[in-house]
Amino acid sequence: MDAEGLAALARQLRVDAVRAADAAGSGHPTSSMSAADLGAVLLARHLRFDFDRPDHPGNDRLVLSKGHASPLLYAMYRAVGAVDDDELLTYRQLGSRLEGHPTPRLPWVDVATGSLGQGLPVGVGMALAGKRLDQLPYRVYVLCGDSEMAEGSVWEAVEHAAYNHLDNLTLVVDVNRLGQRGPTRHEHDLGAYQRRLHAFGWHTIEVDGHDLDAVDRAFAEARSTVREPTAILAATRKGRGVAAVEDKEGFHGKPLKDTAEAIEELGGRPGIRISAQRPPDGDRPKAERATPELPRYDLGDEVATRNAYGEALAALGSARGEVVALDAEVSDSTRAEFFAKAHPERYFECYIAEQQLVAAAVGLQTRGYVPYASTFAAFLTRAHDFLRMAAVSRAGINMVGSHAGIAIGQDGPSQMGVEDLAMFRSVHGSTVLYPCDANQTAKLVAGMADLEGVRYLRTSRGEMPVIYGPDEEFPAGGSKVLREHGDDDRATVVAAGVTVHEALKAADLLAEYGIPVRVVDLYSVKPVDADTLNQAAGVTGCLLTVEDHHPEGGIGDAVAEVFSDGRPAPRLTRLAVRNMPGSATPEEQLHEAGIDAEAIVAAVKLLVERVVAP
Amino acid sequence: MDAEGLAALARQLRVDAVRAADAAGSGHPTSSMSAADLGAVLLARHLRFDFDRPDHPGNDRLVLSKGHASPLLYAMYRAVGAVDDDELLTYRQLGSRLEGHPTPRLPWVDVATGSLGQGLPVGVGMALAGKRLDQLPYRVYVLCGDSEMAEGSVWEAVEHAAYNHLDNLTLVVDVNRLGQRGPTRHEHDLGAYQRRLHAFGWHTIEVDGHDLDAVDRAFAEARSTVREPTAILAATRKGRGVAAVEDKEGFHGKPLKDTAEAIEELGGRPGIRISAQRPPDGDRPKAERATPELPRYDLGDEVATRNAYGEALAALGSARGEVVALDAEVSDSTRAEFFAKAHPERYFECYIAEQQLVAAAVGLQTRGYVPYASTFAAFLTRAHDFLRMAAVSRAGINMVGSHAGIAIGQDGPSQMGVEDLAMFRSVHGSTVLYPCDANQTAKLVAGMADLEGVRYLRTSRGEMPVIYGPDEEFPAGGSKVLREHGDDDRATVVAAGVTVHEALKAADLLAEYGIPVRVVDLYSVKPVDADTLNQAAGVTGCLLTVEDHHPEGGIGDAVAEVFSDGRPAPRLTRLAVRNMPGSATPEEQLHEAGIDAEAIVAAVKLLVERVVAP
Repeated sequence: MDAEGLAALARQLRVDAVRAADAAGSGHPTSSMSAADLGAVLLARHLRFDFDRPDHPGNDRLVLSKGHASPLLYAMYRAVGAVDDDELLTYRQLGSRLEGHPTPRLPWVDVATGSLGQGLPVGVGMALAGKRLDQLPYRVYVLCGDSEMAEGSVWEAVEHAAYNHLDNLTLVVDVNRLGQRGPTRHEHDLGAYQRRLHAFGWHTIEVDGHDLDAVDRAFAEARSTVREPTAILAATRKGRGVAAVEDKEGFHGKPLKDTAEAIEELGGRPGIRISAQRPPDGDRPKAERATPELPRYDLGDEVATRNAYGEALAALGSARGEVVALDAEVSDSTRAEFFAKAHPERYFECYIAEQQLVAAAVGLQTRGYVPYASTFAAFLTRAHDFLRMAAVSRAGINMVGSHAGIAIGQDGPSQMGVEDLAMFRSVHGSTVLYPCDANQTAKLVAGMADLEGVRYLRTSRGEMPVIYGPDEEFPAGGSKVLREHGDDDRATVVAAGVTVHEALKAADLLAEYGIPVRVVDLYSVKPVDADTLNQAAGVTGCLLTVEDHHPEGGIGDAVAEVFSDGRPAPRLTRLAVRNMPGSATPEEQLHEAGIDAEAIVAAVKLLVERVVAP
Repeated sequence: MDAEGLAALARQLRVDAVRAADAAGSGHPTSSMSAADLGAVLLARHLRFDFDRPDHPGNDRLVLSKGHASPLLYAMYRAVGAVDDDELLTYRQLGSRLEGHPTPRLPWVDVATGSLGQGLPVGVGMALAGKRLDQLPYRVYVLCGDSEMAEGSVWEAVEHAAYNHLDNLTLVVDVNRLGQRGPTRHEHDLGAYQRRLHAFGWHTIEVDGHDLDAVDRAFAEARSTVREPTAILAATRKGRGVAAVEDKEGFHGKPLKDTAEAIEELGGRPGIRISAQRPPDGDRPKAERATPELPRYDLGDEVATRNAYGEALAALGSARGEVVALDAEVSDSTRAEFFAKAHPERYFECYIAEQQLVAAAVGLQTRGYVPYASTFAAFLTRAHDFLRMAAVSRAGINMVGSHAGIAIGQDGPSQMGVEDLAMFRSVHGSTVLYPCDANQTAKLVAGMADLEGVRYLRTSRGEMPVIYGPDEEFPAGGSKVLREHGDDDRATVVAAGVTVHEALKAADLLAEYGIPVRVVDLYSVKPVDADTLNQAAGVTGCLLTVEDHHPEGGIGDAVAEVFSDGRPAPRLTRLAVRNMPGSATPEEQLHEAGIDAEAIVAAVKLLVERVVAP
């Protein structure tokens, strides 16, 4: 495509962005117009992508981090014929694939964007896959806005990309000077971005983002740069091409007032149809696949579930080549180090950067890998927005939070994950697993690999006795009845993780008082085993939940939801962490919070007495 | 204090750190030893702090961002006589103020640390208070580790500090080369940190962190540097002073093996007692305090609650001088701009950096301000770890999330806050408010200022009719019964925010079917009005919750928790957002998710029929 054609293509992208927003009555045409020249050059001259085969292993990746500029992306899809004009005009309408911000409902979109500052971290994950695992020459392009450079997650990614010499990664910053509510911090000072990125070890190129030839040379320079990722810093003007809005405040996120006039000013509708370059042939190495030989633990042995996690993951990695692991500089605590030692080529150290940790996992799964990403449960809250967006991205990732709950003991509240179940339960389509023993952990680790969506495994710091045999099965959505006395049971105690062992102790004590109770190990907090809970409710009429978590959003809420189906409900009560813990031994912590065996005994007695004498 | 005394003080800090960890049987002595010389110089020569008056307005602030080095901090407190030797040896024991990581249970600690990368962002908030509001010459010192420089939140703060010319802020980076599981990315390459910080506009000083004189000069240089924050990059050795552990891997977070021997190697116990320099006199300007003249809205007018938020906050700011507002570059959407226009001197633009937004609020409240920090509800998830830690810090902050729920319409799921209630409910000691009308919003905005802990207000994008008079009161923990027909009510619909209006429509429709229902506006999601719900349950026997939020962790769970008190429960059922929304109009969204009036009517019918024919 010659220079004239390129200019016409850029005009068309602007026109189509304006038309789409006009049809929708909302959207961000001005943010699209600033980047239209960048998009045109990339699409016509550099991107290698088979739009008929979005799963082609050699396809370059394009992440529109400034997801609000979706009209530009959709205009690019129309230019290659992937989307037709009728569909373009369904933008933002009910049922349309062309959502306000891109999602993988479109086959050419790998990840959802729209929460700013996430595109580059996810792109880093894709670039790591290309370089270290696929060993394919595809490039990853991330187009981001200048406003989002204020997000810390961008700088986690900047650091990570340079440290890993990701020369297959190109960041294009559309420096259009204007954020949503006014000027950005650095406006058109490209040097401000250049100095920062260069200091982190990036190759940088400053260009006039409306000079098609300069932009073209910049992309070429990025492709020929080795050992360093490249940032193209493009000075642009928001609303470029329409004088009424160009480089002016107050026109963010609004259709243009007079679309017909704007189209005329932009030079009309060129009607261009182009083909992107074809990706190179070549396939990625075939991953091994065998049945994993999971570790087997003897009944009664004292094993921390975090240890079982590490051992099971290493075994799973031996059986399945697509399994990868990531950790945020605490692999000696989470035990991800067991995997790292067994499979160093598939282990990714993310240092203390939890947003990058999750984003890298999301990026890796777009390339078919099955990532397990671990850190302390408490610190996964750092990546909540990335987890939320992973669900919108329809990403399949395994998250592992160790050191759950107050049971960690002396380190105190900053290290205690007591909100993690609430966070993961609220993620759309998630699975939440919380084992109490080593064999159970091993089975869950293997089983979660093949689930969909965001899967969470909550592991514990301290040792706990092995109570299940190594051949027992633990499907997601199941539970285990650990104590039951048929119709004699007078209450049901529902526990998970560390509280299962407290519940078993309590059941023994209660038996001495002549109060038989049923004990349910609710290892699958979401989905929850409604059948078993309903059955227990039918027999005992009352249930007590006990959890090492705040009372909101965890096991108590999960069980209550089962009985929120319009039918008469059993009597419920819950024990949970309601205090602000300090430092203390694990046993003292459980006692202080009132979630130990003694507290369970007291609560069950109260519950049972109420049946007898309401 | 002369050089010899200083060296002895540094030795004592090491010895006391070793002794504290020994007494506890856990803790991080080696991470304390690397920074002991830095701590000694700061305490003896630069920190101006009246330990008898921790609330002295002129006190410098010291934030130990590497909170695991708490033994060093406690040793410093012992050196000034604030903590005695007996208490030092209670470290990490049940009931001790000397927790594993510092918390404000100690009067000299402003904020809890231990989640890495939070000290600098919070310190930025304190420094902003000193410079822009208090106009007092106190300095803010943040001591952080090298590992935590990988956290994006640090770079949000680095950018913010330089942009605001916070020359009252000194960051000391204890570059001890070793993280938890092994070497850091940059090990002892001070230049790597220097280049990055310098590029962001910081003054940087590289020193040997064990050269007391050089460290002293660095602090002096920091104090005399104007217009730029200063970072002292100190090369240190983890475990400094004890050959068995010094600069060696494998000794993170463990007491030394032979404490007596280590103490001998360190030179014994010097028994030094020093005084910190006294802070300068002077008080901060007295804040105005009057009864706010809140905006008043007419019944039936269509007003977005986000508008009422902005208008009420501006009015509150006029009445109360300690009220400040912050926003993450979306003040035109959240309507924080109304406050910004009325009180520019008390408005803090944080750009798109939600972690810094919350951290700045936490920092400002340590100086007695009442911050309101706003962005889209969806993007507050970005700061979940900061909110969790704000609770551990016993911080009083007002968080405001606009654009809640799928009711925002066309923008799609990336912009929709449908996990925020779950997140805020799970924060310890939090208050969660969700108004449905403008007058209610105004009252809640004013009322939340005087609550304790983390307060959350959820506002909506779209206009909704005003249904309450301007003089109605809305205390936290309350609710409003909007429809009731005495004992005739056959079901209770519990709603909040946008679903209140759907519930009212549904109640009218159900009345036509001869099904009188009670409608409760649960504007206080936490604490929840158990009395009103119990009363409604007593009459109607069944309740339906309907919420613009995922089914986990929100209003359905909050109501179910009320009935998880061991007593016989009413029949419950819930409507919530179970689908993954795309783009659509607000009305279409509510319909697709099944949380509109039509869905409520259908659900109530089902619920009521079950009563009749179970």
